[in-house]
Amino acid sequence: MFKEYLERVHQLRPVIHSITNYVTVNDVANILLALGASPIMADDPGEVEEIVALSSGLYINIGTLNEGTIPSMEMAAKKAGDLSLPWVLDPVGAGASKLRTWTSLSLIDRYQPDVIRGNLSEIRALALGHQTTRGVDAEGDEELLASIDMVEAYARKTASIIAATGPVDIVSDGQETILLRNGHPDMEKVTGTGCQLSALVPAFLAASPKEHFRAAAAAVALMGLAGEMAREQLTPAEGNVSYRNHIIDQIFLMTPKIFGEKVRYEIR
Amino acid sequence: MFKEYLERVHQLRPVIHSITNYVTVNDVANILLALGASPIMADDPGEVEEIVALSSGLYINIGTLNEGTIPSMEMAAKKAGDLSLPWVLDPVGAGASKLRTWTSLSLIDRYQPDVIRGNLSEIRALALGHQTTRGVDAEGDEELLASIDMVEAYARKTASIIAATGPVDIVSDGQETILLRNGHPDMEKVTGTGCQLSALVPAFLAASPKEHFRAAAAAVALMGLAGEMAREQLTPAEGNVSYRNHIIDQIFLMTPKIFGEKVRYEIR
Amino acid sequence: MFKEYLERVHQLRPVIHSITNYVTVNDVANILLALGASPIMADDPGEVEEIVALSSGLYINIGTLNEGTIPSMEMAAKKAGDLSLPWVLDPVGAGASKLRTWTSLSLIDRYQPDVIRGNLSEIRALALGHQTTRGVDAEGDEELLASIDMVEAYARKTASIIAATGPVDIVSDGQETILLRNGHPDMEKVTGTGCQLSALVPAFLAASPKEHFRAAAAAVALMGLAGEMAREQLTPAEGNVSYRNHIIDQIFLMTPKIFGEKVRYEIR
Repeated sequence: MFKEYLERVHQLRPVIHSITNYVTVNDVANILLALGASPIMADDPGEVEEIVALSSGLYINIGTLNEGTIPSMEMAAKKAGDLSLPWVLDPVGAGASKLRTWTSLSLIDRYQPDVIRGNLSEIRALALGHQTTRGVDAEGDEELLASIDMVEAYARKTASIIAATGPVDIVSDGQETILLRNGHPDMEKVTGTGCQLSALVPAFLAASPKEHFRAAAAAVALMGLAGEMAREQLTPAEGNVSYRNHIIDQIFLMTPKIFGEKVRYEIR
Repeated sequence: MFKEYLERVHQLRPVIHSITNYVTVNDVANILLALGASPIMADDPGEVEEIVALSSGLYINIGTLNEGTIPSMEMAAKKAGDLSLPWVLDPVGAGASKLRTWTSLSLIDRYQPDVIRGNLSEIRALALGHQTTRGVDAEGDEELLASIDMVEAYARKTASIIAATGPVDIVSDGQETILLRNGHPDMEKVTGTGCQLSALVPAFLAASPKEHFRAAAAAVALMGLAGEMAREQLTPAEGNVSYRNHIIDQIFLMTPKIFGEKVRYEIR
Repeated sequence: MFKEYLERVHQLRPVIHSITNYVTVNDVANILLALGASPIMADDPGEVEEIVALSSGLYINIGTLNEGTIPSMEMAAKKAGDLSLPWVLDPVGAGASKLRTWTSLSLIDRYQPDVIRGNLSEIRALALGHQTTRGVDAEGDEELLASIDMVEAYARKTASIIAATGPVDIVSDGQETILLRNGHPDMEKVTGTGCQLSALVPAFLAASPKEHFRAAAAAVALMGLAGEMAREQLTPAEGNVSYRNHIIDQIFLMTPKIFGEKVRYEIR
């Protein structure tokens, strides 16, 4: 189903303005280039509005937020709204500190992201106020139905598309929900696979402006599939850094045809 | 001897809060994941105390310190002390600027790190006030005895464990000293192998709370051994970036059994 | 022709102080090490003058400039001038925002860099005030002559050496111009190849203080050749991150002999 969404990204080659953490920013830039998009990073209040204005989409990731960058995130999100550009929030570590939870909730409340992409635990922290003590989470299938309900309710509450990733990825706009079953558990052993996925989303939204929900699901599916195919490439002499390299390389090498054939999804 | 220290890290999977430089932070995150630990990066004064509180250990590296992050380092170090969590200082570039030397000395004096891990020249700059003009140093065996004396004296003075790395790595708590002879000179041709090593230390301390001295030595030994084994993997078509990848991959692949067999140490 | 410039860098092993963006800083550090140079990163106003003073050259890249680092760039550039150390400006994204354009023009006007290294579109934005909407550009040979004229005129106006890279790289001091025809178009699919190239330049200048113009051209030639040779190494299973790794590895492996043989240049 998702073939054409990737084709459109390859054709448009959208410029994506990213305000993201300094831990995984290099991988974010390279994965956007691997996708055929063009990354631009800028986080000073003195230029973020201009940079948004020359971009096709905006990505905000609070992974290493600070006093200096929070105002830039707000200015950029407002500008994206004014220009009707798609923007995506990755609330990294929401639930781990009040600063992260409140900054996320404030950006969501005031500037309504088109998509909120987080781990299931981060989405739950925003939706229900639960605290988490690890940056990364995983959970059993037995809780899947409850998670789907939570994600759908939070999508309706925020009027954003919610993409909550875990062993099964859940993407919902509150009306329709898609479950995605690609990926590999070892992706959690590479820093920033979530950050990288989130960066792909605004590129997909920019290329399919009338189908944001399915475009977001396609981005999630692509990252999962790349993670899966990269895992098959891994030799016994390779570890998590080689796995990181293979994942981004697989995004670079992915054709719409293979993507369309190998993605495993379920529309509920 | 060090086998069980690695086993314990694999079992505990400690969360390590890192306030570190933006040059090598991605490698730091990936090496912690390779070790089976869980990295979390946060450097805003508005959240560092909460992040320390949900972690099992703290890593402070002054490689790109600035006015904004120094107060965060102080708050985090104080909080770690209040909670009796292990914390490790890497005084990158101590001796190269007054800001680095003074910040290091102030953190040591006020918040007593469990371990100070630096190049021999950085440790010497802190212990003796010598200035250095290169970030990286190496020195001949003929000066080894004098270096050991210096490290032991500085350990007694600070009441911290000192891990001074070089051609021979010296780890001392002022009472006992371990010399480690793994590693490869080409590790200096990869940026951040020191930063990466230092990040491993709080994970080892957290997993062996009653044996900080030997746990710190085990971390140093592991990095040296990974560097050595990764060097053997390097093909003639590979350079220093491939070497970086192999080193972290070797941490990922290391079993306690191999670690225990291959480490070369001497207890004095 | 350029063989000896690389030999001199290998012999001198210059320390290069870099104030650069957090997106590609790790690659910048590793490529300087690959070249045999020694990177040091520092961007706090409280230490940049001391760090310049212990270095052999300075690299300023405005890729993620902000209110905090602009004063540090100014102090560092001034100090480099006072000490007659070579310094190189990479005006990343000049033309994309007023902050970037004005900061570049101000640094150029007040502190006269020895070399300004940018994409052709960035150099054009500075020289002619044209706006650009993409970070990266490419252009046909038909415009080459006009570009050469523009670069030569801008070199005369600024009294800096201008290195404008694109399908054909143009290096001019306003009197003499060298065209370089190494490289591969896929280098644009790796983040930061421009940043990495610019970092090499001060190392070459430091090693050949009386021949800055040819030394700068040699640095540009080396990066192009490494990109070309790395591209030949790429297997069908590898993408842009593997390409990044190969490029830096090729700098590490490059001998003066091979460099001298394979570089393709034209002195006009």
